[in-house]
Amino acid sequence: MASSSNITQVLETGSKKMSVGDYDEIYKFSCDLVKRVGAEIVAASRVREKLYETKSSAIDFVTETDGRVEKLLMDAIAKRYPDHVLIGEESAVEGKHQELTDAPTWIVDPIDGTMNFVHSFPCSAISLALWANKTAEVGLVYNPTENKLYSARRGGGAFLNGDPIHVSGTKELSQALVMFEVGTSRDPAKLRCVASNFAALHPRIHGFRSLGSAALDMCMVAQGGADAYYEYGLHSWDMAAGVLIVREAGGYVCDTTGADFDLLSRRVLCAANSELASQMSPMLAHVDLPRD
Amino acid sequence: MASSSNITQVLETGSKKMSVGDYDEIYKFSCDLVKRVGAEIVAASRVREKLYETKSSAIDFVTETDGRVEKLLMDAIAKRYPDHVLIGEESAVEGKHQELTDAPTWIVDPIDGTMNFVHSFPCSAISLALWANKTAEVGLVYNPTENKLYSARRGGGAFLNGDPIHVSGTKELSQALVMFEVGTSRDPAKLRCVASNFAALHPRIHGFRSLGSAALDMCMVAQGGADAYYEYGLHSWDMAAGVLIVREAGGYVCDTTGADFDLLSRRVLCAANSELASQMSPMLAHVDLPRD
Repeated sequence: MASSSNITQVLETGSKKMSVGDYDEIYKFSCDLVKRVGAEIVAASRVREKLYETKSSAIDFVTETDGRVEKLLMDAIAKRYPDHVLIGEESAVEGKHQELTDAPTWIVDPIDGTMNFVHSFPCSAISLALWANKTAEVGLVYNPTENKLYSARRGGGAFLNGDPIHVSGTKELSQALVMFEVGTSRDPAKLRCVASNFAALHPRIHGFRSLGSAALDMCMVAQGGADAYYEYGLHSWDMAAGVLIVREAGGYVCDTTGADFDLLSRRVLCAANSELASQMSPMLAHVDLPRD
Repeated sequence: MASSSNITQVLETGSKKMSVGDYDEIYKFSCDLVKRVGAEIVAASRVREKLYETKSSAIDFVTETDGRVEKLLMDAIAKRYPDHVLIGEESAVEGKHQELTDAPTWIVDPIDGTMNFVHSFPCSAISLALWANKTAEVGLVYNPTENKLYSARRGGGAFLNGDPIHVSGTKELSQALVMFEVGTSRDPAKLRCVASNFAALHPRIHGFRSLGSAALDMCMVAQGGADAYYEYGLHSWDMAAGVLIVREAGGYVCDTTGADFDLLSRRVLCAANSELASQMSPMLAHVDLPRD
């Protein structure tokens, strides 16, 4: 058993025993890392015309900054935790299925909201999570241009720049402010799903808001600024940190159908509570996308 | 003629001659005023459960804070400029047409984004404008919870917290990030218009974003974070400051049909340039609403 002054619990993982002390260290390391690497995004965001390439569709972008920031994050993690598994948006092989094992696994999105970054719309974030035993243990979402760091540890609550945050008390869908996204797919079935859900929900809720970043949408639910969020077409790196932050802020996370949340399923429904989620999921038209 | 060290121009108004020096003073007075009164909104926003009443629809809200903040603004303006005309959201009489004369006229929205304020979604702003000769002379949009002050003087450029801002260079609608809002009307014709425009545009642009505040949506176009914004159902106080900030940031403001902008027409199209506006307006389904 590892020794540390504040070890009170030892958790079995696929590769080695992880202690609460290990997670304390990982949490601190992660906070320092995103703050340091975030400065690179701030510097790059000052360039007015940002060059980009497309990935899965004509509006799914990647910039040189995405790759560079991911490498900085990955290299720092690999140096500090050489036996941990790494999953990163820019390192992922298009079309190759991801595997989430019990091993300590870092899941990294260097810029969640690349479209925003390209447009200088100030809602982009590093999303960084550590999962072990297929459970989120540490989650960070850092918007460097606005200097907003959302963070959570399993069982330890959720925070915005160190201050505790909590979901709203809204339980009625008719009273809900809902985050939604069109997303970056041009697949006709996906676009029909987006338009159908917009048409079904918008006359029945308080309103829609859209920030263009899945991670920051989830954090808005976590801080109680919005009451729910749903999206289709996401990847694991878009959700891995945000779902922990929502849960640790007291919120509810599930599949858009209302089933258990599945990190590799490409979709998510976050809500302030299960009552709200159970009113939303039957109203949504679903689309099945290839698993991560 | 009024005398001042920096008077270079004298403008005729309906009630008296206004000088550049007068506008200098008004600009400074306005900046100080919104900063001071904004502190009231920050304090009120800390209350988690905000009480509200409804106005024109089940989702058109007003809080005690709207009325109190408007009174603080109006009283301060009336004391300093007793011969100026005042138009305010909360003082306006429902159904009574507004009249915009050549007289110096302050147009005040104490909280643009009241729905956001009620939900603690951090995008609410004081919108304060001075118009004279039916022309915007000074425009301020201040988001006090985020401490972001957008400001403009006619012919003097636009600023965010004192730093110059400028619209984007995007000229192609297919490359545009577009701000849009569902709004607070439950009128079926308006809702059909919203859904129709969403469906028509969303597969043809880079993406939609929605902040829930007309004034802040316009400022996002002004700072180049988004490329265009359109909305139906607005009132003069939602637009009076924002349109000046967009124009002074180099942007283009017109009616959603492409005709000249009309402050009392209940609708607006803002874009980084006229090329973008001219591609958007033919794609929009329009709805006619009773004039302000």
